[in-house]
Amino acid sequence: MDSDYGIPRELSDLQKLRSLYQPQLPPCLEGTTVRVEFGDTTTSLDPTDAQTIARAFPHTFGKPLAHFFRPTAKVPAAQIITEHPTIRVGLVFCGRQSPGGHNVIWGLHKALKIHNPNSTLLGFLEGGYDLLGRTQDQIRTTEQVQAALTACNVLKLDGLVIIGGVTSNTDAAQLAETFAEAKCPTKVVGVPVTLNGDFKNQFVEANVGFDTICKVNSQLISNVCTDALSAEKYYYFIRLMGRKASHVALECTLQSHPNMVILGEEVAASKLTLFDITKQICDAIQARAEQDKNHGVILLPEGLIESIPEVYALLKEIHSLLRQNVSADTISSQLSPWASALFEFLPPFIRKQLLLHPESDDSAQLSQIETEKLLAHLVEDEINKRLKAGTYNGKKFNAICHFFGYQARGSLPSKFDCDYAYVLGHVCYHILAAGLNGYMATITNLKNPVNKWRCGAAPITAMMTVKRWSQNPNSLAIGKPAIHPATVDLKGKAYELLRQNATRFLLDDIYRNPGPLQFDGPGADAKAVTLCVEDQDYMGRIKKLQEYLDKVCTIVKPGCSQEVLKAALSVMASVTEVLSVMSSSSPGAQAL
Amino acid sequence: MDSDYGIPRELSDLQKLRSLYQPQLPPCLEGTTVRVEFGDTTTSLDPTDAQTIARAFPHTFGKPLAHFFRPTAKVPAAQIITEHPTIRVGLVFCGRQSPGGHNVIWGLHKALKIHNPNSTLLGFLEGGYDLLGRTQDQIRTTEQVQAALTACNVLKLDGLVIIGGVTSNTDAAQLAETFAEAKCPTKVVGVPVTLNGDFKNQFVEANVGFDTICKVNSQLISNVCTDALSAEKYYYFIRLMGRKASHVALECTLQSHPNMVILGEEVAASKLTLFDITKQICDAIQARAEQDKNHGVILLPEGLIESIPEVYALLKEIHSLLRQNVSADTISSQLSPWASALFEFLPPFIRKQLLLHPESDDSAQLSQIETEKLLAHLVEDEINKRLKAGTYNGKKFNAICHFFGYQARGSLPSKFDCDYAYVLGHVCYHILAAGLNGYMATITNLKNPVNKWRCGAAPITAMMTVKRWSQNPNSLAIGKPAIHPATVDLKGKAYELLRQNATRFLLDDIYRNPGPLQFDGPGADAKAVTLCVEDQDYMGRIKKLQEYLDKVCTIVKPGCSQEVLKAALSVMASVTEVLSVMSSSSPGAQAL
Repeated sequence: MDSDYGIPRELSDLQKLRSLYQPQLPPCLEGTTVRVEFGDTTTSLDPTDAQTIARAFPHTFGKPLAHFFRPTAKVPAAQIITEHPTIRVGLVFCGRQSPGGHNVIWGLHKALKIHNPNSTLLGFLEGGYDLLGRTQDQIRTTEQVQAALTACNVLKLDGLVIIGGVTSNTDAAQLAETFAEAKCPTKVVGVPVTLNGDFKNQFVEANVGFDTICKVNSQLISNVCTDALSAEKYYYFIRLMGRKASHVALECTLQSHPNMVILGEEVAASKLTLFDITKQICDAIQARAEQDKNHGVILLPEGLIESIPEVYALLKEIHSLLRQNVSADTISSQLSPWASALFEFLPPFIRKQLLLHPESDDSAQLSQIETEKLLAHLVEDEINKRLKAGTYNGKKFNAICHFFGYQARGSLPSKFDCDYAYVLGHVCYHILAAGLNGYMATITNLKNPVNKWRCGAAPITAMMTVKRWSQNPNSLAIGKPAIHPATVDLKGKAYELLRQNATRFLLDDIYRNPGPLQFDGPGADAKAVTLCVEDQDYMGRIKKLQEYLDKVCTIVKPGCSQEVLKAALSVMASVTEVLSVMSSSSPGAQAL
Repeated sequence: MDSDYGIPRELSDLQKLRSLYQPQLPPCLEGTTVRVEFGDTTTSLDPTDAQTIARAFPHTFGKPLAHFFRPTAKVPAAQIITEHPTIRVGLVFCGRQSPGGHNVIWGLHKALKIHNPNSTLLGFLEGGYDLLGRTQDQIRTTEQVQAALTACNVLKLDGLVIIGGVTSNTDAAQLAETFAEAKCPTKVVGVPVTLNGDFKNQFVEANVGFDTICKVNSQLISNVCTDALSAEKYYYFIRLMGRKASHVALECTLQSHPNMVILGEEVAASKLTLFDITKQICDAIQARAEQDKNHGVILLPEGLIESIPEVYALLKEIHSLLRQNVSADTISSQLSPWASALFEFLPPFIRKQLLLHPESDDSAQLSQIETEKLLAHLVEDEINKRLKAGTYNGKKFNAICHFFGYQARGSLPSKFDCDYAYVLGHVCYHILAAGLNGYMATITNLKNPVNKWRCGAAPITAMMTVKRWSQNPNSLAIGKPAIHPATVDLKGKAYELLRQNATRFLLDDIYRNPGPLQFDGPGADAKAVTLCVEDQDYMGRIKKLQEYLDKVCTIVKPGCSQEVLKAALSVMASVTEVLSVMSSSSPGAQAL
């Protein structure tokens, strides 16, 4: 792909080396022939949402899963795609930039050309990243969707690949449905690329960019930990970019072992107030001071501020007034008495930041709200009070505040993100070659080496849920099917690992330094801790289940012995009973 | 060296690999025997300071240079140190932490044990770094010096190695002199370790830590540049740790090619005011907007704020009042009218930061003053004015501010810093074995591979100058010989390289990404750009000169022909004339 965007830049030696890097392909995508097998038709995670989603997406809901295999694989039901006509594919980066996203282009372009040298890939200046530039956060309004439809028709596109996070891929599903309804031949494919790591569900294990972001941030956090231990006089409050959910903060904590992390999900679940959080941090500082430690490192996800109940309520009032075009200067006088009291209590810099207009997804401008400074300020006040009261005997409290975000998301991508994005690009091609519309490219078993990865595709609509309630009554999201960002699962294995180690992290300074992002030697192939402990591979297990079912059918064929048939009936009866009970008692969402 | 400081921590794979890394030694230090050759006696850089320094340091001033060679090297005047009695050496980290400092311990310990397994190395909990911990910034007062003398006597130390920057090594010279005067047998050796890169003179080409700091910062700056080009809507104002001088900012600019850098030295030389700087940045933003570029990256050294004449004058007044114990709350009412006017003009957050107590070296608390926010604020005001006046037609100005410091100085050291520190540790041993007191370990020709490095030692007093004047009349530094931080040479090659490229950097977005710090592959052996273009090796050239002089003596021996003698006389007459003229017209300081 030639791009005339920007002038050629001088490459460093490392960039030159990285530009020679050739990612591996998993065996199922090697060579020029790939088999595709269709699995069961899909439904939604929460069965109660299925009808709503089916009504909104009549052409694209309930489609089967697709799995890709080597032509030699022993999969009797698979079909080999043999025709590879010339196709034209468009590609859009939607929303914010994330390291590795460019490799999707590379993988897709390569796959297109391998199967037909006359095929074409077109890039749209519509989304993010420095290769194409980022201009729009969404394709959602009727005008935007119509413009996309017209463009795809005019350009005679066979496929449109949309690269982004939960919002962009919700838009992709809508486009796919609109195109199908309008009998537009362009098939829409989604790719999960977002540094937030919040695009996670049964089908999607990881997002392109998250691995790099966590590695770069963990390096910096580790460096700050070393500085803490060396200077022995500062508390570092580090806020991490990653939107509402705390995936980045959790992963970085498991990589770097800072003294403390406060996850937004914990705060929301326990309904902790600003004062509760301040007290929690002060108690930690006091416990450390009793061990003669007057330094420490505390991580805060940028979404934390919205998870604090009273701050969220205040933000809701502010945003509602802003939507009524009340000017920021006069908002404070129009707040409810208690919201006004909280607002006046906050330091001026935070007040100004809370008054910023909300983002397109209704959330506050999280990257602009300096929660780390607010908490450092409140903690300093409280420690000084305790010092006066004689309940705290440590040294003077000194805070240093950081926000790690922009300096990580422009990084060279990690090997994992390079490989993952490149293979996803190839999968996109095979989805289009199989004629699928409204599908997401999926790769599972990611915690294992590339040669063990499983490639497939799942209908985007199968990842949707329907919000029936929101704290924000103006929310556009109510009642509309959408992919919602996954929050950190407080019952999950990754969080459990954090809880098990929290006390040692807090008191023992067992800082760990994964070091700078390496492209060679140990560490280069390291995977995210959360990816490894969570042990997902839902797609792989769905596949395995089908194999068991097939095997039962093969063994218990008409003509088999009465004993075998009786045994099968008895065992299958209890299996179905157990599963029926489980499915009705627990909503699907908890099964993840 | 065993240390019971802190509990064992889990090492990452990369840390484990790095802990196995064995730096090379240059040929002159290989094996168990090293020759030492003494060169000319030294003087001070500025001849007018020599007398003052000689008076203050009667025992340690005017000593010869020392060069270390392989025993097989053809250096007739060299002496081989053959006796290696058991010695006891103490080691102190002084001042702030800097990556790689620990390797000095390793190199010194290794050299001690190679030459006599019974020798001992003791670490003092007195300076910086997480291995020993950092408690004091200096050893300067009479009490501190006496305590050090007593400790060295009690512990029967043969040597004391002091690791730090200009301040610590000035203290080291003072200790050496005091010890000599008191007939204390402990010899004092200095090692140039400071991330600021401002300990530079004829004998010292580079400081341990500077390479790592610049590589880590350059990586982050490059990532931010990519983000700028991708988001296309922000101006990033990045302040860099590095104290008064702008070496870190200059090096990072040459590595990453951001759009703009404002060096403190430029501002001081041109006496640019806050308004001049604001205007300069706004003009740059306007020029870019005319090319439809509404993003950019601007670097600011942390020392910039003190280089702005009117801010410096304000700081001087504030510090003077603080020294008179005027409380910070009432200072603003006691300022001179014009200082008060400037103070009131500044935004509240900066006022608070300017009121902080000065550091032990009389400078402001540079790491705490958010110059980047001040300039972003002033630029926003000015751009809005131009927008109203219709002279600026670009998009809305959005600034994102960063301070890169703490997250870099705790980094794993680069290969260069590992090697440099390790070899310096070895050199320290040989200085002690040669019985030298008040010397600095030096390695020159650093831009070349380790096997070309030249090892030596220079009296610390030869690096001193005497300040006869200061803008701050209370300055303790006046009249006292000290090593002063080197500023960026505005006539030097590195700055020239910056000027040559400044317009392209500003307008063409030729961002360069050196990538994350690598320990393997390309980039791992990259050296600082400034180190390579400056082409120092003063020690090597002094050596070379001596060889020429020796050769002349050998050729023009009594008995040589009249013609040869006449030719020698004629040529030498013009050489001495040229050099006399040069030496008298330009002060030594400019010869660097």
